[in-house]
Amino acid sequence: QEASQDPAEETWLPSLMTETPAEGFDLAVSMARKAVTTTQTDIDALHALRPNYAHDPQSLIDVSGVVADYFATVAAANDYWRE
Amino acid sequence: QEASQDPAEETWLPSLMTETPAEGFDLAVSMARKAVTTTQTDIDALHALRPNYAHDPQSLIDVSGVVADYFATVAAANDYWRE
Amino acid sequence: QEASQDPAEETWLPSLMTETPAEGFDLAVSMARKAVTTTQTDIDALHALRPNYAHDPQSLIDVSGVVADYFATVAAANDYWRE
Amino acid sequence: QEASQDPAEETWLPSLMTETPAEGFDLAVSMARKAVTTTQTDIDALHALRPNYAHDPQSLIDVSGVVADYFATVAAANDYWRE
Amino acid sequence: QEASQDPAEETWLPSLMTETPAEGFDLAVSMARKAVTTTQTDIDALHALRPNYAHDPQSLIDVSGVVADYFATVAAANDYWRE
Amino acid sequence: QEASQDPAEETWLPSLMTETPAEGFDLAVSMARKAVTTTQTDIDALHALRPNYAHDPQSLIDVSGVVADYFATVAAANDYWRE
Repeated sequence: QEASQDPAEETWLPSLMTETPAEGFDLAVSMARKAVTTTQTDIDALHALRPNYAHDPQSLIDVSGVVADYFATVAAANDYWRE
Repeated sequence: QEASQDPAEETWLPSLMTETPAEGFDLAVSMARKAVTTTQTDIDALHALRPNYAHDPQSLIDVSGVVADYFATVAAANDYWRE
Repeated sequence: QEASQDPAEETWLPSLMTETPAEGFDLAVSMARKAVTTTQTDIDALHALRPNYAHDPQSLIDVSGVVADYFATVAAANDYWRE
Repeated sequence: QEASQDPAEETWLPSLMTETPAEGFDLAVSMARKAVTTTQTDIDALHALRPNYAHDPQSLIDVSGVVADYFATVAAANDYWRE
Repeated sequence: QEASQDPAEETWLPSLMTETPAEGFDLAVSMARKAVTTTQTDIDALHALRPNYAHDPQSLIDVSGVVADYFATVAAANDYWRE
Repeated sequence: QEASQDPAEETWLPSLMTETPAEGFDLAVSMARKAVTTTQTDIDALHALRPNYAHDPQSLIDVSGVVADYFATVAAANDYWRE
Protein backbone atom coordinates (compact mmCIF):
# COMPACT_ATOMS: atom_id res chain seq x y z
CA GLN A 1 0.00 0.00 0.00
CA GLU A 2 1.12 3.64 -0.51
CA ALA A 3 2.47 4.11 3.05
CA SER A 4 3.38 7.69 3.90
CA GLN A 5 7.16 7.69 4.51
CA ASP A 6 7.29 10.87 6.62
CA PRO A 7 7.01 9.70 10.31
CA ALA A 8 5.20 12.94 11.22
CA GLU A 9 2.73 11.99 8.49
CA GLU A 10 2.24 8.63 10.14
CA THR A 11 1.47 9.91 13.64
CA TRP A 12 -1.12 12.57 12.79
CA LEU A 13 -3.79 9.86 12.84
CA PRO A 14 -2.59 7.03 15.09
CA SER A 15 -6.15 5.87 15.80
CA LEU A 16 -9.85 6.67 15.25
CA MET A 17 -10.63 5.86 18.89
CA THR A 18 -11.60 8.75 21.20
CA GLU A 19 -12.88 8.91 24.75
CA THR A 20 -16.01 10.95 24.02
CA PRO A 21 -18.25 12.07 21.14
CA ALA A 22 -16.93 15.64 21.59
CA GLU A 23 -13.36 14.40 21.05
CA GLY A 24 -14.62 12.38 18.09
CA PHE A 25 -16.09 15.59 16.65
CA ASP A 26 -12.74 17.37 17.14
CA LEU A 27 -11.00 14.50 15.36
CA ALA A 28 -13.46 14.75 12.47
CA VAL A 29 -12.77 18.49 12.20
CA SER A 30 -9.01 17.84 12.16
CA MET A 31 -9.40 15.15 9.47
CA ALA A 32 -11.49 17.51 7.35
CA ARG A 33 -8.73 20.12 7.62
CA LYS A 34 -6.00 17.54 6.95
CA ALA A 35 -7.57 16.66 3.59
CA VAL A 36 -7.40 20.35 2.68
CA THR A 37 -3.77 20.78 3.75
CA THR A 38 -2.89 17.55 1.90
CA THR A 39 -4.30 19.11 -1.27
CA GLN A 40 -3.01 22.69 -0.71
CA THR A 41 0.25 22.37 1.25
CA ASP A 42 0.93 26.15 1.21
CA ILE A 43 -0.43 27.19 4.63
CA ASP A 44 -0.10 30.90 3.87
CA ALA A 45 -2.18 30.42 0.74
CA LEU A 46 -4.80 28.67 2.88
CA HIS A 47 -4.86 31.44 5.48
CA ALA A 48 -5.33 33.96 2.71
CA LEU A 49 -8.49 32.06 1.68
CA ARG A 50 -10.04 32.16 5.17
CA PRO A 51 -11.91 35.48 4.81
CA ASN A 52 -13.65 34.06 1.73
CA TYR A 53 -15.10 30.84 3.16
CA ALA A 54 -15.47 32.00 6.80
CA HIS A 55 -17.94 34.65 5.65
CA ASP A 56 -19.67 32.63 2.95
CA PRO A 57 -22.80 30.80 4.24
CA GLN A 58 -22.61 28.21 1.42
CA SER A 59 -19.02 27.33 2.32
CA LEU A 60 -19.81 27.12 6.03
CA ILE A 61 -22.75 24.79 5.31
CA ASP A 62 -20.53 22.62 3.09
CA VAL A 63 -17.79 22.51 5.76
CA SER A 64 -20.41 21.23 8.21
CA GLY A 65 -21.42 18.53 5.74
CA VAL A 66 -17.80 17.41 5.30
CA VAL A 67 -17.30 17.23 9.09
CA ALA A 68 -20.49 15.13 9.25
CA ASP A 69 -18.97 12.63 6.79
CA TYR A 70 -15.76 12.23 8.83
CA PHE A 71 -17.74 12.15 12.08
CA ALA A 72 -19.91 9.32 10.77
CA THR A 73 -16.78 7.22 10.28
CA VAL A 74 -15.26 8.16 13.67
CA ALA A 75 -18.58 7.44 15.43
CA ALA A 76 -18.87 4.02 13.79
CA ALA A 77 -15.24 3.29 14.73
CA ASN A 78 -16.07 4.04 18.37
CA ASP A 79 -19.34 2.05 18.23
CA TYR A 80 -21.10 5.37 18.86
CA TRP A 81 -19.52 5.57 22.35
CA ARG A 82 -22.21 3.24 23.65
CA GLU A 83 -21.75 2.52 27.36
CA GLN B 1 -6.06 11.87 20.43
CA GLU B 2 -6.55 15.67 20.08
CA ALA B 3 -8.76 16.08 23.18
CA SER B 4 -10.46 19.47 23.45
CA GLN B 5 -9.03 21.07 26.63
CA ASP B 6 -11.88 23.53 27.27
CA PRO B 7 -14.32 21.70 29.67
CA ALA B 8 -17.28 23.54 28.10
CA GLU B 9 -16.06 22.11 24.80
CA GLU B 10 -16.16 18.64 26.30
CA THR B 11 -19.72 18.74 27.58
CA TRP B 12 -21.50 20.06 24.49
CA LEU B 13 -21.74 16.50 23.20
CA PRO B 14 -21.67 14.13 26.18
CA SER B 15 -23.48 11.39 24.25
CA LEU B 16 -25.25 10.55 20.97
CA MET B 17 -28.06 8.80 22.86
CA THR B 18 -31.52 10.45 22.90
CA GLU B 19 -34.90 9.33 24.11
CA THR B 20 -36.77 9.88 20.84
CA PRO B 21 -36.18 10.41 17.11
CA ALA B 22 -37.36 14.03 17.50
CA GLU B 23 -34.64 14.64 20.10
CA GLY B 24 -32.18 12.87 17.82
CA PHE B 25 -33.16 15.29 15.06
CA ASP B 26 -32.62 18.26 17.40
CA LEU B 27 -29.19 16.86 18.28
CA ALA B 28 -28.33 16.52 14.59
CA VAL B 29 -29.34 20.15 14.02
CA SER B 30 -27.16 21.27 16.95
CA MET B 31 -24.18 19.25 15.64
CA ALA B 32 -24.61 20.80 12.18
CA ARG B 33 -24.53 24.24 13.77
CA LYS B 34 -21.58 23.34 16.00
CA ALA B 35 -19.43 22.50 12.96
CA VAL B 36 -20.21 25.98 11.60
CA THR B 37 -19.38 27.78 14.87
CA THR B 38 -16.20 25.70 15.15
CA THR B 39 -15.15 27.03 11.75
CA GLN B 40 -16.44 30.63 12.17
CA THR B 41 -16.13 31.43 15.90
CA ASP B 42 -17.36 35.05 15.45
CA ILE B 43 -21.07 34.69 16.32
CA ASP B 44 -21.88 38.23 15.20
CA ALA B 45 -20.34 37.48 11.81
CA LEU B 46 -22.54 34.37 11.63
CA HIS B 47 -25.70 36.27 12.54
CA ALA B 48 -24.89 38.80 9.83
CA LEU B 49 -24.91 35.92 7.32
CA ARG B 50 -28.34 34.65 8.32
CA PRO B 51 -30.42 36.79 5.89
CA ASN B 52 -28.35 35.34 3.03
CA TYR B 53 -28.81 31.62 3.64
CA ALA B 54 -32.24 31.77 5.36
CA HIS B 55 -33.73 33.21 2.16
CA ASP B 56 -31.70 31.17 -0.33
CA PRO B 57 -33.45 27.94 -1.39
CA GLN B 58 -30.16 26.29 -2.38
CA SER B 59 -28.67 26.96 1.06
CA LEU B 60 -31.80 25.72 2.85
CA ILE B 61 -31.74 22.50 0.78
CA ASP B 62 -28.04 22.02 1.57
CA VAL B 63 -28.65 22.63 5.30
CA SER B 64 -31.29 19.89 5.21
CA GLY B 65 -28.77 17.54 3.58
CA VAL B 66 -26.18 18.27 6.25
CA VAL B 67 -28.72 17.61 9.04
CA ALA B 68 -29.56 14.33 7.27
CA ASP B 69 -25.89 13.27 7.47
CA TYR B 70 -25.66 13.98 11.23
CA PHE B 71 -29.10 12.41 11.81
CA ALA B 72 -27.99 9.22 10.06
CA THR B 73 -25.18 8.87 12.61
CA VAL B 74 -27.38 9.73 15.61
CA ALA B 75 -30.08 7.29 14.43
CA ALA B 76 -27.55 4.48 14.02
CA ALA B 77 -26.14 5.28 17.47
CA ASN B 78 -29.63 4.88 18.94
CA ASP B 79 -30.31 1.70 16.92
CA TYR B 80 -33.07 3.70 15.21
CA TRP B 81 -35.00 3.93 18.51
CA ARG B 82 -36.36 0.45 17.87
CA GLU B 83 -38.65 -0.69 20.70
CA GLN C 1 -29.50 15.90 25.68
CA GLU C 2 -31.08 19.07 24.17
CA ALA C 3 -34.69 17.81 24.42
CA SER C 4 -37.18 19.97 22.52
CA GLN C 5 -39.56 21.38 25.16
CA ASP C 6 -42.51 22.12 22.84
CA PRO C 7 -44.75 18.95 22.95
CA ALA C 8 -45.80 19.53 19.32
CA GLU C 9 -42.08 19.45 18.54
CA GLU C 10 -41.81 16.09 20.26
CA THR C 11 -44.59 14.35 18.39
CA TRP C 12 -43.69 15.30 14.82
CA LEU C 13 -41.35 12.32 14.71
CA PRO C 14 -42.58 9.73 17.20
CA SER C 15 -40.87 6.88 15.33
CA LEU C 16 -38.92 5.98 12.19
CA MET C 17 -41.01 2.85 11.69
CA THR C 18 -43.46 2.74 8.75
CA GLU C 19 -45.62 0.02 7.27
CA THR C 20 -44.30 0.28 3.71
CA PRO C 21 -41.39 1.72 1.71
CA ALA C 22 -43.79 4.28 0.18
CA GLU C 23 -44.67 5.53 3.67
CA GLY C 24 -40.97 5.52 4.51
CA PHE C 25 -40.38 7.72 1.47
CA ASP C 26 -43.12 10.12 2.61
CA LEU C 27 -41.49 10.26 6.05
CA ALA C 28 -38.11 11.03 4.46
CA VAL C 29 -39.69 13.88 2.47
CA SER C 30 -41.30 15.27 5.64
CA MET C 31 -37.96 15.08 7.53
CA ALA C 32 -36.20 16.89 4.67
CA ARG C 33 -38.81 19.64 4.87
CA LYS C 34 -38.64 19.74 8.69
CA ALA C 35 -34.92 20.54 8.57
CA VAL C 36 -35.74 23.49 6.30
CA THR C 37 -38.56 24.82 8.52
CA THR C 38 -36.29 24.37 11.57
CA THR C 39 -33.75 26.65 9.88
CA GLN C 40 -36.23 29.14 8.32
CA THR C 41 -39.23 29.27 10.68
CA ASP C 42 -41.03 31.96 8.62
CA ILE C 43 -43.41 29.83 6.49
CA ASP C 44 -44.43 32.78 4.33
CA ALA C 45 -40.79 33.45 3.53
CA LEU C 46 -40.43 29.78 2.54
CA HIS C 47 -43.51 29.86 0.29
CA ALA C 48 -42.11 32.95 -1.40
CA LEU C 49 -39.01 30.90 -2.27
CA ARG C 50 -40.94 28.07 -3.89
CA PRO C 51 -41.04 29.47 -7.46
CA ASN C 52 -37.23 29.68 -7.36
CA TYR C 53 -36.36 26.09 -6.41
CA ALA C 54 -39.45 24.37 -7.92
CA HIS C 55 -38.38 25.59 -11.38
CA ASP C 56 -34.63 25.16 -10.93
CA PRO C 57 -33.34 21.76 -12.12
CA GLN C 58 -30.27 21.96 -9.87
CA SER C 59 -32.39 22.57 -6.78
CA LEU C 60 -34.80 19.75 -7.69
CA ILE C 61 -31.85 17.36 -8.16
CA ASP C 62 -30.41 18.43 -4.80
CA VAL C 63 -33.79 18.00 -3.07
CA SER C 64 -33.89 14.44 -4.42
CA GLY C 65 -30.41 13.81 -3.01
CA VAL C 66 -31.45 15.10 0.42
CA VAL C 67 -34.56 12.86 0.43
CA ALA C 68 -32.26 9.95 -0.49
CA ASP C 69 -30.15 10.62 2.61
CA TYR C 70 -33.16 10.64 4.95
CA PHE C 71 -34.67 7.62 3.15
CA ALA C 72 -31.46 5.64 3.66
CA THR C 73 -31.83 6.12 7.42
CA VAL C 74 -35.57 5.32 7.45
CA ALA C 75 -35.00 2.22 5.31
CA ALA C 76 -32.25 0.95 7.62
CA ALA C 77 -34.51 1.63 10.62
CA ASN C 78 -37.19 -0.54 9.04
CA ASP C 79 -34.68 -3.26 8.05
CA TYR C 80 -35.58 -2.42 4.45
CA TRP C 81 -39.15 -3.69 5.01
CA ARG C 82 -37.90 -7.24 4.47
CA GLU C 83 -40.72 -9.79 4.79
CA GLN D 1 -46.83 7.89 10.60
CA GLU D 2 -47.88 10.24 7.76
CA ALA D 3 -49.27 7.47 5.51
CA SER D 4 -49.99 8.60 1.95
CA GLN D 5 -53.78 8.26 1.48
CA ASP D 6 -53.82 8.04 -2.33
CA PRO D 7 -53.67 4.24 -3.15
CA ALA D 8 -51.68 4.98 -6.33
CA GLU D 9 -49.22 6.71 -4.02
CA GLU D 10 -48.97 3.58 -1.93
CA THR D 11 -48.22 1.16 -4.75
CA TRP D 12 -45.46 3.08 -6.52
CA LEU D 13 -42.97 1.54 -4.11
CA PRO D 14 -44.38 -1.75 -2.84
CA SER D 15 -40.91 -3.13 -2.04
CA LEU D 16 -37.18 -2.46 -2.33
CA MET D 17 -36.55 -6.03 -3.42
CA THR D 18 -35.50 -6.67 -7.06
CA GLU D 19 -34.32 -9.74 -8.92
CA THR D 20 -31.06 -8.23 -10.24
CA PRO D 21 -28.69 -5.31 -9.68
CA ALA D 22 -29.82 -3.85 -13.03
CA GLU D 23 -33.42 -3.81 -11.80
CA GLY D 24 -32.19 -2.33 -8.53
CA PHE D 25 -30.51 0.44 -10.54
CA ASP D 26 -33.76 1.10 -12.44
CA LEU D 27 -35.60 1.30 -9.10
CA ALA D 28 -33.03 3.79 -7.78
CA VAL D 29 -33.52 5.94 -10.91
CA SER D 30 -37.31 5.85 -10.44
CA MET D 31 -36.97 6.82 -6.74
CA ALA D 32 -34.69 9.72 -7.67
CA ARG D 33 -37.30 10.92 -10.14
CA LYS D 34 -40.15 10.37 -7.66
CA ALA D 35 -38.53 12.75 -5.17
CA VAL D 36 -38.46 15.40 -7.91
CA THR D 37 -42.10 14.88 -8.92
CA THR D 38 -43.09 14.92 -5.23
CA THR D 39 -41.49 18.37 -4.96
CA GLN D 40 -42.59 19.72 -8.37
CA THR D 41 -45.94 18.05 -9.17
CA ASP D 42 -46.41 20.01 -12.45
CA ILE D 43 -45.10 17.49 -15.02
CA ASP D 44 -45.20 20.01 -17.86
CA ALA D 45 -43.04 22.38 -15.80
CA LEU D 46 -40.59 19.52 -15.27
CA HIS D 47 -40.46 18.63 -18.97
CA ALA D 48 -39.77 22.28 -19.74
CA LEU D 49 -36.70 22.04 -17.49
CA ARG D 50 -35.24 19.00 -19.26
CA PRO D 51 -33.19 20.86 -21.89
CA ASN D 52 -31.43 22.71 -19.06
CA TYR D 53 -30.23 19.79 -16.96
CA ALA D 54 -29.91 17.20 -19.76
CA HIS D 55 -27.26 19.39 -21.42
CA ASP D 56 -25.54 20.61 -18.27
CA PRO D 57 -22.57 18.44 -17.23
CA GLN D 58 -22.80 19.56 -13.58
CA SER D 59 -26.46 18.56 -13.38
CA LEU D 60 -25.81 15.19 -15.04
CA ILE D 61 -22.98 14.49 -12.56
CA ASP D 62 -25.24 15.44 -9.66
CA VAL D 63 -28.07 13.23 -10.98
CA SER D 64 -25.62 10.32 -11.03
CA GLY D 65 -24.68 11.05 -7.42
CA VAL D 66 -28.34 11.07 -6.37
CA VAL D 67 -28.96 7.74 -8.12
CA ALA D 68 -25.90 6.38 -6.28
CA ASP D 69 -27.47 7.32 -2.94
CA TYR D 70 -30.77 5.55 -3.71
CA PHE D 71 -28.90 2.58 -5.23
CA ALA D 72 -26.84 2.19 -2.05
CA THR D 73 -30.08 1.73 -0.09
CA VAL D 74 -31.64 -0.65 -2.65
CA ALA D 75 -28.43 -2.70 -2.80
CA ALA D 76 -28.28 -3.01 0.99
CA ALA D 77 -31.97 -3.99 1.02
CA ASN D 78 -31.20 -6.80 -1.42
CA ASP D 79 -28.06 -7.87 0.48
CA TYR D 80 -26.13 -6.86 -2.65
CA TRP D 81 -27.81 -9.67 -4.65
CA ARG D 82 -25.29 -12.12 -3.18
CA GLU D 83 -25.88 -15.65 -4.45
CA GLN E 1 -40.77 -4.04 -9.61
CA GLU E 2 -40.14 -1.87 -12.70
CA ALA E 3 -37.98 -4.47 -14.49
CA SER E 4 -36.14 -3.14 -17.52
CA GLN E 5 -37.55 -5.06 -20.56
CA ASP E 6 -34.56 -4.54 -22.90
CA PRO E 7 -32.27 -7.65 -22.40
CA ALA E 8 -29.18 -5.51 -23.08
CA GLU E 9 -30.39 -3.32 -20.24
CA GLU E 10 -30.52 -6.37 -18.00
CA THR E 11 -27.00 -7.63 -18.64
CA TRP E 12 -25.09 -4.37 -18.16
CA LEU E 13 -25.02 -5.05 -14.42
CA PRO E 14 -25.32 -8.81 -13.88
CA SER E 15 -23.60 -8.62 -10.49
CA LEU E 16 -21.77 -6.32 -8.05
CA MET E 17 -19.14 -8.96 -7.40
CA THR E 18 -15.60 -8.37 -8.73
CA GLU E 19 -12.31 -10.16 -8.29
CA THR E 20 -10.31 -7.16 -7.05
CA PRO E 21 -10.77 -3.64 -5.66
CA ALA E 22 -9.41 -2.25 -8.93
CA GLU E 23 -12.16 -4.05 -10.87
CA GLY E 24 -14.64 -2.82 -8.26
CA PHE E 25 -13.44 0.73 -8.95
CA ASP E 26 -13.90 0.21 -12.70
CA LEU E 27 -17.43 -1.05 -12.04
CA ALA E 28 -18.18 2.02 -9.90
CA VAL E 29 -16.96 4.28 -12.74
CA SER E 30 -19.17 2.42 -15.24
CA MET E 31 -22.20 2.71 -12.91
CA ALA E 32 -21.58 6.44 -12.50
CA ARG E 33 -21.53 6.80 -16.29
CA LYS E 34 -24.59 4.59 -16.71
CA ALA E 35 -26.66 6.92 -14.52
CA VAL E 36 -25.66 9.79 -16.83
CA THR E 37 -26.51 7.89 -20.05
CA THR E 38 -29.81 6.79 -18.48
CA THR E 39 -30.66 10.47 -17.97
CA GLN E 40 -29.20 11.82 -21.23
CA THR E 41 -29.58 9.02 -23.83
CA ASP E 42 -28.15 11.13 -26.68
CA ILE E 43 -24.50 10.00 -26.71
CA ASP E 44 -23.45 12.69 -29.18
CA ALA E 45 -24.91 15.33 -26.87
CA LEU E 46 -22.88 13.82 -24.02
CA HIS E 47 -19.65 13.81 -26.02
CA ALA E 48 -20.23 17.44 -26.87
CA LEU E 49 -20.29 18.19 -23.13
CA ARG E 50 -16.95 16.49 -22.42
CA PRO E 51 -14.71 19.54 -22.99
CA ASN E 52 -16.74 21.41 -20.36
CA TYR E 53 -16.51 18.99 -17.45
CA ALA E 54 -13.14 17.39 -18.33
CA HIS E 55 -11.47 20.81 -17.93
CA ASP E 56 -13.52 22.04 -15.00
CA PRO E 57 -11.91 21.28 -11.60
CA GLN E 58 -15.27 21.47 -9.79
CA SER E 59 -16.82 18.91 -12.14
CA LEU E 60 -13.83 16.58 -11.86
CA ILE E 61 -14.00 16.77 -8.04
CA ASP E 62 -17.74 16.04 -8.14
CA VAL E 63 -17.23 13.10 -10.53
CA SER E 64 -14.74 11.65 -8.03
CA GLY E 65 -17.32 12.04 -5.26
CA VAL E 66 -19.96 10.22 -7.30
CA VAL E 67 -17.55 7.35 -8.05
CA ALA E 68 -16.83 7.18 -4.30
CA ASP E 69 -20.56 6.68 -3.61
CA TYR E 70 -20.88 3.81 -6.10
CA PHE E 71 -17.55 2.32 -4.95
CA ALA E 72 -18.76 2.29 -1.34
CA THR E 73 -21.67 0.07 -2.40
CA VAL E 74 -19.53 -2.21 -4.57
CA ALA E 75 -16.94 -2.56 -1.79
CA ALA E 76 -19.60 -3.47 0.77
CA ALA E 77 -21.06 -5.98 -1.72
CA ASN E 78 -17.65 -7.64 -2.00
CA ASP E 79 -17.08 -7.53 1.77
CA TYR E 80 -14.16 -5.19 1.01
CA TRP E 81 -12.31 -8.03 -0.80
CA ARG E 82 -11.14 -9.32 2.59
CA GLU E 83 -9.00 -12.43 2.22
CA GLN F 1 -17.48 -7.88 -15.09
CA GLU F 2 -15.65 -5.02 -16.90
CA ALA F 3 -12.14 -6.08 -15.78
CA SER F 4 -9.43 -3.57 -16.61
CA GLN F 5 -7.08 -5.33 -19.06
CA ASP F 6 -4.02 -3.12 -18.45
CA PRO F 7 -1.96 -4.91 -15.70
CA ALA F 8 -0.75 -1.54 -14.36
CA GLU F 9 -4.43 -0.69 -14.01
CA GLU F 10 -4.95 -3.83 -11.97
CA THR F 11 -2.19 -3.24 -9.44
CA TRP F 12 -2.93 0.37 -8.51
CA LEU F 13 -5.43 -0.91 -5.95
CA PRO F 14 -4.43 -4.42 -4.93
CA SER F 15 -6.22 -4.14 -1.58
CA LEU F 16 -8.12 -1.76 0.73
CA MET F 17 -6.18 -3.02 3.74
CA THR F 18 -3.64 -0.67 5.38
CA GLU F 19 -1.60 -0.85 8.55
CA THR F 20 -2.78 2.43 10.07
CA PRO F 21 -5.55 5.04 9.75
CA ALA F 22 -2.96 7.50 8.38
CA GLU F 23 -2.13 5.06 5.55
CA GLY F 24 -5.85 4.54 5.05
CA PHE F 25 -6.22 8.30 4.65
CA ASP F 26 -3.38 8.36 2.09
CA LEU F 27 -5.12 5.54 0.19
CA ALA F 28 -8.40 7.50 0.22
CA VAL F 29 -6.58 10.55 -1.19
CA SER F 30 -5.01 8.41 -3.94
CA MET F 31 -8.42 6.87 -4.81
CA ALA F 32 -9.98 10.33 -4.99
CA ARG F 33 -7.23 11.39 -7.42
CA LYS F 34 -7.53 8.15 -9.41
CA ALA F 35 -11.19 8.86 -10.15
CA VAL F 36 -10.14 12.25 -11.55
CA THR F 37 -7.34 10.83 -13.72
CA THR F 38 -9.71 8.10 -14.93
CA THR F 39 -12.06 10.84 -16.13
CA GLN F 40 -9.42 13.28 -17.42
CA THR F 41 -6.47 11.15 -18.63
CA ASP F 42 -4.47 14.18 -19.86
CA ILE F 43 -2.15 14.82 -16.89
CA ASP F 44 -0.89 18.11 -18.32
CA ALA F 45 -4.46 19.34 -18.61
CA LEU F 46 -4.97 18.39 -14.95
CA HIS F 47 -1.83 20.18 -13.79
CA ALA F 48 -3.00 23.27 -15.65
CA LEU F 49 -6.17 23.19 -13.54
CA ARG F 50 -4.33 23.06 -10.21
CA PRO F 51 -4.04 26.84 -9.64
CA ASN F 52 -7.83 27.08 -9.96
CA TYR F 53 -8.93 24.51 -7.39
CA ALA F 54 -5.90 24.80 -5.05
CA HIS F 55 -6.79 28.45 -4.40
CA ASP F 56 -10.58 28.06 -4.39
CA PRO F 57 -12.01 27.47 -0.88
CA GLN F 58 -15.16 25.81 -2.29
CA SER F 59 -13.09 23.31 -4.28
CA LEU F 60 -10.82 22.55 -1.32
CA ILE F 61 -13.88 21.93 0.89
CA ASP F 62 -15.38 19.64 -1.77
CA VAL F 63 -12.08 17.73 -2.16
CA SER F 64 -12.13 17.11 1.60
CA GLY F 65 -15.67 15.77 1.33
CA VAL F 66 -14.69 13.40 -1.47
CA VAL F 67 -11.71 12.10 0.54
CA ALA F 68 -14.13 11.56 3.46
CA ASP F 69 -16.30 9.33 1.25
CA TYR F 70 -13.37 7.14 0.16
CA PHE F 71 -11.96 7.11 3.70
CA ALA F 72 -15.29 5.86 5.06
CA THR F 73 -15.02 2.82 2.78
CA VAL F 74 -11.33 2.19 3.57
CA ALA F 75 -12.02 2.52 7.31
CA ALA F 76 -14.89 0.04 7.15
CA ALA F 77 -12.71 -2.33 5.14
CA ASN F 78 -10.09 -2.22 7.89
CA ASP F 79 -12.72 -2.59 10.65
CA TYR F 80 -11.65 0.91 11.76
CA TRP F 81 -8.18 -0.42 12.69
CA ARG F 82 -9.60 -1.65 15.99
CA GLU F 83 -6.93 -3.37 18.10
